[in-house]
Amino acid sequence: MQKIVTLKPFVHITATAPISVHTHGGRAKCLQRLIRLNLPVPTTVALSFETVTRIAAGQLPSMTSILSEFGSDPLLSVRPSSEDPDWGGPGAILNIGMNWDRHAALSESLGEPAATALYLRFVQAYSVHVARLDPDMFEQPEKVDRKALDRALDTYQDETDDPFPQDPAAQLGEVLRSMARAWGGTTARLLRQAKGAPADAGLGLVVQRMALGVGPGESGAGVIQFVDPATGEPQITGRYRCQSQSRDALKPGKGQVYLTRDERGPSLEEIVPEIFADLCRYGALCREKLREEMQLEFTIEDGNLRILDALRVQRSSRAAVRIAVALADDGIIPQSDALLRIAPRALTEVLHPQIDPTAKRVLATRGIGASPGAARGKIVFSSTAAQASAARDEPCILVRRETAPEDIRGMHAARGILTERGGMTSHAAVIARGLGLPCVVGASSVTISHRSKTLTTAEGKVFAEGDEITIDGGTGEVLAGAVPMLEPALDDSFRSLLSWADAVRDIGIRANADTPADARLARSFAAQGIGLCRTEHMFFEQDRLTVMREMIFAKSAGDRAAALEQLLPMQRADFVELFEIMQGLPVCIRLFDPPLHEFLPTDRSAMRGLAESLDLPIAEITRRVEQLTEFNPMLGMRGVRLGIAMPEIYEMQARAIFEATIEASRNGDPIVPEIMIPLVSANREVELVKTRIDAVAAAVRNERGKPFDYRLGVMGETPRACLRADEIAQHAAFMSFGTNDLTQMTYGLSRDDAGRFMSDYVNQGVFREDPFHMLDVDGVGELLKLGAERARATDPDIVLSICGEHAGNAESIAFCRDVGFDYVSCSPFRVPVVRLAAAHLALLNPKD
Amino acid sequence: MQKIVTLKPFVHITATAPISVHTHGGRAKCLQRLIRLNLPVPTTVALSFETVTRIAAGQLPSMTSILSEFGSDPLLSVRPSSEDPDWGGPGAILNIGMNWDRHAALSESLGEPAATALYLRFVQAYSVHVARLDPDMFEQPEKVDRKALDRALDTYQDETDDPFPQDPAAQLGEVLRSMARAWGGTTARLLRQAKGAPADAGLGLVVQRMALGVGPGESGAGVIQFVDPATGEPQITGRYRCQSQSRDALKPGKGQVYLTRDERGPSLEEIVPEIFADLCRYGALCREKLREEMQLEFTIEDGNLRILDALRVQRSSRAAVRIAVALADDGIIPQSDALLRIAPRALTEVLHPQIDPTAKRVLATRGIGASPGAARGKIVFSSTAAQASAARDEPCILVRRETAPEDIRGMHAARGILTERGGMTSHAAVIARGLGLPCVVGASSVTISHRSKTLTTAEGKVFAEGDEITIDGGTGEVLAGAVPMLEPALDDSFRSLLSWADAVRDIGIRANADTPADARLARSFAAQGIGLCRTEHMFFEQDRLTVMREMIFAKSAGDRAAALEQLLPMQRADFVELFEIMQGLPVCIRLFDPPLHEFLPTDRSAMRGLAESLDLPIAEITRRVEQLTEFNPMLGMRGVRLGIAMPEIYEMQARAIFEATIEASRNGDPIVPEIMIPLVSANREVELVKTRIDAVAAAVRNERGKPFDYRLGVMGETPRACLRADEIAQHAAFMSFGTNDLTQMTYGLSRDDAGRFMSDYVNQGVFREDPFHMLDVDGVGELLKLGAERARATDPDIVLSICGEHAGNAESIAFCRDVGFDYVSCSPFRVPVVRLAAAHLALLNPKD
Repeated sequence: MQKIVTLKPFVHITATAPISVHTHGGRAKCLQRLIRLNLPVPTTVALSFETVTRIAAGQLPSMTSILSEFGSDPLLSVRPSSEDPDWGGPGAILNIGMNWDRHAALSESLGEPAATALYLRFVQAYSVHVARLDPDMFEQPEKVDRKALDRALDTYQDETDDPFPQDPAAQLGEVLRSMARAWGGTTARLLRQAKGAPADAGLGLVVQRMALGVGPGESGAGVIQFVDPATGEPQITGRYRCQSQSRDALKPGKGQVYLTRDERGPSLEEIVPEIFADLCRYGALCREKLREEMQLEFTIEDGNLRILDALRVQRSSRAAVRIAVALADDGIIPQSDALLRIAPRALTEVLHPQIDPTAKRVLATRGIGASPGAARGKIVFSSTAAQASAARDEPCILVRRETAPEDIRGMHAARGILTERGGMTSHAAVIARGLGLPCVVGASSVTISHRSKTLTTAEGKVFAEGDEITIDGGTGEVLAGAVPMLEPALDDSFRSLLSWADAVRDIGIRANADTPADARLARSFAAQGIGLCRTEHMFFEQDRLTVMREMIFAKSAGDRAAALEQLLPMQRADFVELFEIMQGLPVCIRLFDPPLHEFLPTDRSAMRGLAESLDLPIAEITRRVEQLTEFNPMLGMRGVRLGIAMPEIYEMQARAIFEATIEASRNGDPIVPEIMIPLVSANREVELVKTRIDAVAAAVRNERGKPFDYRLGVMGETPRACLRADEIAQHAAFMSFGTNDLTQMTYGLSRDDAGRFMSDYVNQGVFREDPFHMLDVDGVGELLKLGAERARATDPDIVLSICGEHAGNAESIAFCRDVGFDYVSCSPFRVPVVRLAAAHLALLNPKD
Repeated sequence: MQKIVTLKPFVHITATAPISVHTHGGRAKCLQRLIRLNLPVPTTVALSFETVTRIAAGQLPSMTSILSEFGSDPLLSVRPSSEDPDWGGPGAILNIGMNWDRHAALSESLGEPAATALYLRFVQAYSVHVARLDPDMFEQPEKVDRKALDRALDTYQDETDDPFPQDPAAQLGEVLRSMARAWGGTTARLLRQAKGAPADAGLGLVVQRMALGVGPGESGAGVIQFVDPATGEPQITGRYRCQSQSRDALKPGKGQVYLTRDERGPSLEEIVPEIFADLCRYGALCREKLREEMQLEFTIEDGNLRILDALRVQRSSRAAVRIAVALADDGIIPQSDALLRIAPRALTEVLHPQIDPTAKRVLATRGIGASPGAARGKIVFSSTAAQASAARDEPCILVRRETAPEDIRGMHAARGILTERGGMTSHAAVIARGLGLPCVVGASSVTISHRSKTLTTAEGKVFAEGDEITIDGGTGEVLAGAVPMLEPALDDSFRSLLSWADAVRDIGIRANADTPADARLARSFAAQGIGLCRTEHMFFEQDRLTVMREMIFAKSAGDRAAALEQLLPMQRADFVELFEIMQGLPVCIRLFDPPLHEFLPTDRSAMRGLAESLDLPIAEITRRVEQLTEFNPMLGMRGVRLGIAMPEIYEMQARAIFEATIEASRNGDPIVPEIMIPLVSANREVELVKTRIDAVAAAVRNERGKPFDYRLGVMGETPRACLRADEIAQHAAFMSFGTNDLTQMTYGLSRDDAGRFMSDYVNQGVFREDPFHMLDVDGVGELLKLGAERARATDPDIVLSICGEHAGNAESIAFCRDVGFDYVSCSPFRVPVVRLAAAHLALLNPKD
């Protein structure tokens, strides 16, 4: 049974008044806390959500009874108090109660100019925000004097056909009604819903007696906080301005003094040392009791300190980490709270260089921020130019109309990517996120000419190859020149936080890493091993590519094996290096996967070159290229199919892995490599490959006289592999689900081709989310679940995981954890994010 | 508990002897039946499977006790008696018991030449089949006389170092041992297993007293049957030859007489009218009591008729139908038996023209018979030549190295397809089967030059474009010239049989039909409607293609709609024609499915042509072509995705369907068209399309002032559509599963690309069967099952079906029936096959 509570329309906030965030909003509650801490908060009354709803519907409570809470002739402020301060609300309105009577009285006590300024300020605010008159008519006059005030009052009367209201009760009533109605406006509603507010979010209002920062004695207003909002380091920052009201201190102008002792001028610390000491004491008290770094809004009224409000300090992600960790270290909050206070996604900001917020920016264009972080470098317009640039150790930004798979090596070489076309799921965006590379896509107002090697902005500014630019993959901004950067701060706080995360999370995290550089990164981010090492990139390097092509043109299995023989030492060296970097941690190597045609040239002149180097007629080259061309390469002769048709490839790879295992095990713990078969759809495929690999293992053990173990598993990326996981698990020590391909097949949708309509599809709500970005729990998820259940039914100890791009997506990990996967494997740059996300899940939904 | 039965090593066959097909084989059992019918069968003894197994292992039973069953000095024959006569067995051996003593005695009774001929015949058979001597040494001598006999006996002795055995018991023992061992040979075993025999199939043997067809009085041997083996019509056919033994009558030579009265010479009917009458009586008796058309093997021994054996008449598929229906019509067997006697696959032979078996054949080459039926026509080497040929109404055979999707229209235009490359799952084979078009693939010994337009056989014979050839898609034969054909016989028997099938089957059958011709064929085969009408072919016709391209190059939705406006009347006319042909039956129309790039030219000169006709710069053409090119067209912008991106296409189609509905309903029953949305993967796709189509329906009803109904459904061809069938069923009146695409996506395997390795995969047992040929019950099947269950859970009345190529596969239909699909939809030529297959299923596995 629900308790029916009849609330008073307003509550005088005291230490014991019945105020809650859910009935009166966060600001009201916070003010009550300050009052409990004995901070000098002026008299404040809180109006409940229900009251404000009634006001919006036209039922105004008695204004005189509200006014009576404040004694005689007060000036009042009204500020919004929604459940979550982030949801916003109408702006504060100050100095309610000003009229000619008050003006006369205040002229006496504060002097006429101060009284006139207060009255004018109120008339302006009331006219614009309550009477909804054109703000242009109420611009701040050059001189604040009686004439300006009269002009404002005349304008009000001309526009409304009524004199400016003189009754404080009428003024307050109109202010409340206006603010209550603004909350129901469409724009305000959409804005707060975008920040996660429910459709029926309520608004409370707080009415507070003004502390006047103008007048005799030390008077003024300011804000103060005790940490640096960029770094989170302890440091007093803020503003104070004499003879000002409220947040006016934040505006530039005369009257500003420093907060702390400063050589450049007077400071609050020197002017009113006791008040400054009180502020510091209040800050520390708030931090301890409100368990948060707070910004205090204060007014000094004739030498008396008043605390009007306290807000959570706005902060960068980096500062958020520092603050949360410090609070936990100081025993103010438990570590679990520190973990929960950091949104996993915020870590991506910490992990990448950021444009220095204080730097001067010349915006060249703007696109979609598709992969976070900032990068600067010289413009290059081709993959080869990017590689050349990397060879010269010159940072470069790869600029393309759009990218294609053949740009991969250029993307690896660049510091950032900028494309004219494409969206969040374009090739460039997806690959860049995988590489942890800042990327801006869909900068559709620029024109890129690959031929003339220029990028022309909408304003006609031309950038040529070699010109420097800076991109911000978070905001989508493209800036001219090399803008100063803030390097990522993987400091002690960051490390502490993630070590706490590791202590609570209950799902393993590995990284997808193909190269030694990736592996080092993975290790530095404390990945628990490599969950997916793709081996094909190893064959794209120039010297290997030639041998690879010799293999493709081999006339017999014997010739093929001879070509592969040349690749063996290179592969072995690759694996030795990986194993040494990952010493003591598992490394899961996926056998060769792509279709062979990816290794052949596509244009005529490259084919002629290949004909020369292989000493074959060009007709044979074109014939073979044609022969290998596929209608749907995604669904063609690749993965295990190639492994079965040309078993020499997998045999060479297995041998390289086993020989590397022996070599790398010499100086440390024995390595137990994991070998993963791609694109399996039937258990017999696994049997056939297993038989051959076991034979290679036996041969290597025999030749080298050294024992070693290995684990053979399967990449589950076809719907059929999920459905038949019970059979497949008979021969597999692990099954790692490749959710990229699985999503493609489950939807019958190629990711490379989906880019053209995916944004339309998501906008029209056809798909709730891009399934390549957010795991489709309903469809793909069911296949994963079936796969996991069936594999476990055959072998309760089988190791299950996912290694698609989804593994780096915090939302998808919840699913993996529910299904009972042992680990997820994501790109190295996502590892910290996932460590934290997994900790959140463990804290919020502990397993039985 | 199993009963242990100790069988006597042999049984004298009498009416009551314990003989069964499972212990003594079919021949022994048949002979017992003849004896029960009081036919004059000579004394016969049957050896059980067990006995023959023992003999093969060296345990010969007592020969004298066998011989004692036959009285004094018999001559004997031994013939095989396996469980199913089709499984074969060693050849019969006659005249066992011949030796010099019998020779002397028979010389007295039959004359010396006859005795010598009998002895020589035995020596030859014994030497070759029992002693395994080289048959070349025992060729039939020019003159059968004493010298030839002595020569044969000498050769025997020279080769075996033993004189020819004179002891009948020894002879019989060796014959039995030899035949018993032959059964265990590898070749024999593989041959019978290919015909469906189990690995442990047993062999029985029957030993029969010879009736001698040589000697005084009317003597001779023959076979007689009472139906035409080609047509199944009642007609006495067979052979009789005076002074001959056993099946010698079948060999040409002197002594042959006609069976029935004939102007050309003497006949059995005239020579021994009573015996002829007896034969006819026995034939009728067998037909009635053995419930089958039997061929009788008989011997006349000095005017006495002996029936040695009776065999099921060998017959063409056409005759099989005629015979089974006649037996049922005569009340001899029930209709259900008639149905079960015809293998569904046999009907394909009946449905297609066949090469006249009596025609002279000049074999040009041989390939794999990939789609049954025979076709003749002029050779064409390109799709365009095929279309030109069809336009001239000249039958042609499309000859290609291999076919590709762009050859489709040529394939439609040709009478048959011949390719140098490819197997049963090649593009040519699959498409041809779909079209019911005879097809020979993988004729790898010929060389096809598309440039010089020649086909050169291994022997160097060159065929040029325009030369006539004939192909047999059943046998894989390619014959020079236009060989005479037998037209398909869709006679009364065929119709009766299928009407009986329709009466018992419990699953509906529709046809996939895209054109009026297809629809007429479907109707003539009594399909219960059209289950899949693909509409895209309608846009490939030249006049429409141009408009289609205008649409693709339209700059706005408005321009697009204007181009589509031109297509509307053509589409409407298509549908009016289809609806009129299918009057009273449902027609399920699949909305536009293929990616747009299929409608654009791929080569430079065609692009230039298009640029001219659209009055656009060629750069714009190439740009658009590039833009529309996809990495994986199968998984790209097609089906409902296109329908959502360019809603004008579906709107035009819906309007054409509705307007055609009104027009075609004028002269008959109201039409209720079914509209099917392709490639659905999310229910919102269905909602969006449904909203628009409902709006079109409302508009058309309004404009025309006529009511009509329609049913909207979904093609389930992505794994996700199966998994989410519960949601999708909310908006769909029916769901038809497209098993072709579903198989591709479930395996992650493109059918177009799988051809390269599928045969290897099946040969290595990686896949038990080609999943595009035989439904993968384990994987794809589970998705179908889930889809059906879930759709039915939402809407128990939803109509479920499959419309992939599998629907024409008898084995797959069993699955569809088990899952509870309402109907299957297959290519028109498969409809009769499926009607019969479905009847078999209903008879063999009746539903509760």
